[in-house]
Amino acid sequence: MPLAHMLSALEAAIATLQYGEHPPELYDPIRYIMDLGGKRMRPLLTLLSSSLFTDTWQPFVRPDIAVEVFHNFTLMHDDIMDAAPLRRGKPTVHMKWNNSAAILSGDVMLVAAYELLAEITDAQLRPVLKKFNRCAAQVCEGQQLDMNFEARTDVAEEEYLEMIRLKTAVLLGFSLELGAILAGASEKDQQLLYKAGVSIGTGFQLKDDLLDVFGDSAKFGKQVGGDIIANKKTFLLIKALQLTEGEREQQLNNWLQAKDFDPAEKVQAVTSIYGQLGIRELTEAKMNEYFTVGLQAMDQVDVPAARKKPLQDLVERLIYREN
Amino acid sequence: MPLAHMLSALEAAIATLQYGEHPPELYDPIRYIMDLGGKRMRPLLTLLSSSLFTDTWQPFVRPDIAVEVFHNFTLMHDDIMDAAPLRRGKPTVHMKWNNSAAILSGDVMLVAAYELLAEITDAQLRPVLKKFNRCAAQVCEGQQLDMNFEARTDVAEEEYLEMIRLKTAVLLGFSLELGAILAGASEKDQQLLYKAGVSIGTGFQLKDDLLDVFGDSAKFGKQVGGDIIANKKTFLLIKALQLTEGEREQQLNNWLQAKDFDPAEKVQAVTSIYGQLGIRELTEAKMNEYFTVGLQAMDQVDVPAARKKPLQDLVERLIYREN
Repeated sequence: MPLAHMLSALEAAIATLQYGEHPPELYDPIRYIMDLGGKRMRPLLTLLSSSLFTDTWQPFVRPDIAVEVFHNFTLMHDDIMDAAPLRRGKPTVHMKWNNSAAILSGDVMLVAAYELLAEITDAQLRPVLKKFNRCAAQVCEGQQLDMNFEARTDVAEEEYLEMIRLKTAVLLGFSLELGAILAGASEKDQQLLYKAGVSIGTGFQLKDDLLDVFGDSAKFGKQVGGDIIANKKTFLLIKALQLTEGEREQQLNNWLQAKDFDPAEKVQAVTSIYGQLGIRELTEAKMNEYFTVGLQAMDQVDVPAARKKPLQDLVERLIYREN
Repeated sequence: MPLAHMLSALEAAIATLQYGEHPPELYDPIRYIMDLGGKRMRPLLTLLSSSLFTDTWQPFVRPDIAVEVFHNFTLMHDDIMDAAPLRRGKPTVHMKWNNSAAILSGDVMLVAAYELLAEITDAQLRPVLKKFNRCAAQVCEGQQLDMNFEARTDVAEEEYLEMIRLKTAVLLGFSLELGAILAGASEKDQQLLYKAGVSIGTGFQLKDDLLDVFGDSAKFGKQVGGDIIANKKTFLLIKALQLTEGEREQQLNNWLQAKDFDPAEKVQAVTSIYGQLGIRELTEAKMNEYFTVGLQAMDQVDVPAARKKPLQDLVERLIYREN
């Protein structure tokens, strides 16, 4: 069970990270958000990527955590910008402390991510740093685009796909690429894994969009239809706005503009419009395109098929997940 | 005139920095705050420090700008936390755009600082990165302490001095140290320059505290007495609270608790209490202690005295500045 072994190595390393102590308002939020859990998907992808090329992935556990720390930094700052009250069912940092503490703790987390990366060997340090910087800037670009889209009603499908590539997918690409770099993989294999991560990561976001509407509420873990209630510009809504016309377009627009409404009724009505337009099937087709491109890139990585099994298993588990 | 030459090299490099273009809400604020100007004190100190050891400081201009970009990142985020409307007489980023743009642009600026540092040669990259990380975390610690002090009335002199060391002085220490590292100075000289920067930087902050009360309003450039009006816990106020007793203590506390007051009257009254307690002289003595320790450390740097002239000139100009 390499995966369980890796996950416990990651959790152990995360549990022993030293961020600093004083003042507590600066460092307690970091421990708090890191302890909220999550799948640890990004550093797991990094370790699995390394293990394609070497059996000694253990030395990479510490620098790998940089991607998890960075990811949680983005969550802490995004939650302020989105005024989100909850994260994984617990109060967000800016709610539990305040906005200033969340800004400043996030800043220190970004520094902590760089400090973890600084453990990488000399020959790899600069290339990793430059790729990480590019990825980090792109994640910020994606978040800004996502906020810009909130105020727009004319977001095109291509714009949306570019936004999720930046906001979500490039970090998965970097996570796989980092593992390959650390393990001394060829430039070609590094690039294939980056491509695989970006493509599969885009698919994951489309999967999230789908689960929010069509997920099984018992398994999903959060309110099904939350995106519909909030008029969130997901792939589904953008596609529906693109395809709908006539009376149905009017109905959809009425729901988008409604101020006073019964949430359950809105979810039911918009989901029904999605159903009439075949939005679920269109989104699944687009998602599967991305998964296919990503899995093909992974197939081309120049190591025996048997070595790829654990990474493929994780990716498939994430593809078929229901929450 | 090495200083003028260095300053124009810095300004030219700053003017041609590429931060990214899209989305504009993310990158325009970076150009805006970097274009607000300022003394460029930190990268100037770095270049002058390098020039103690080598005449070819030109290759260090780009990585040096990292300290200026980092400094402006801290200003952008601090202004949100302090709800500051103006910076150098212009609207702050969060006022001109909004809080989210200021958070996210600041994040990208921090990444941009690391990208500039990534230009440092292989042998120096890791040590510089680790020292920069430590400095960056300390600056955040200082800002958090500063915010914590706002809600307290019992801040001790030593706590205040430690706060300004973290918030302000360590970055000046790092700036001088960075110049020494880049120029290949000995470990001992690197440490002396770090010590000089931290000590002189602490003195600079005490100077700021003094100028805010006793500055010449015609030369100071901002409202004299602003710290008094806002009850800011400066060295002067902390010292006054420590020394005052009896009726004068009551007067001072009344002014601190006053809700409705004439600002000019409050400034005049508190300044008068400072005068009766000899606060100006006590603060100047403490400031001069720090300057002396810093200048002595600089004296011990193992290069001919003549080479130190430009750096000493700048430091003295900053020591005797009136704004």
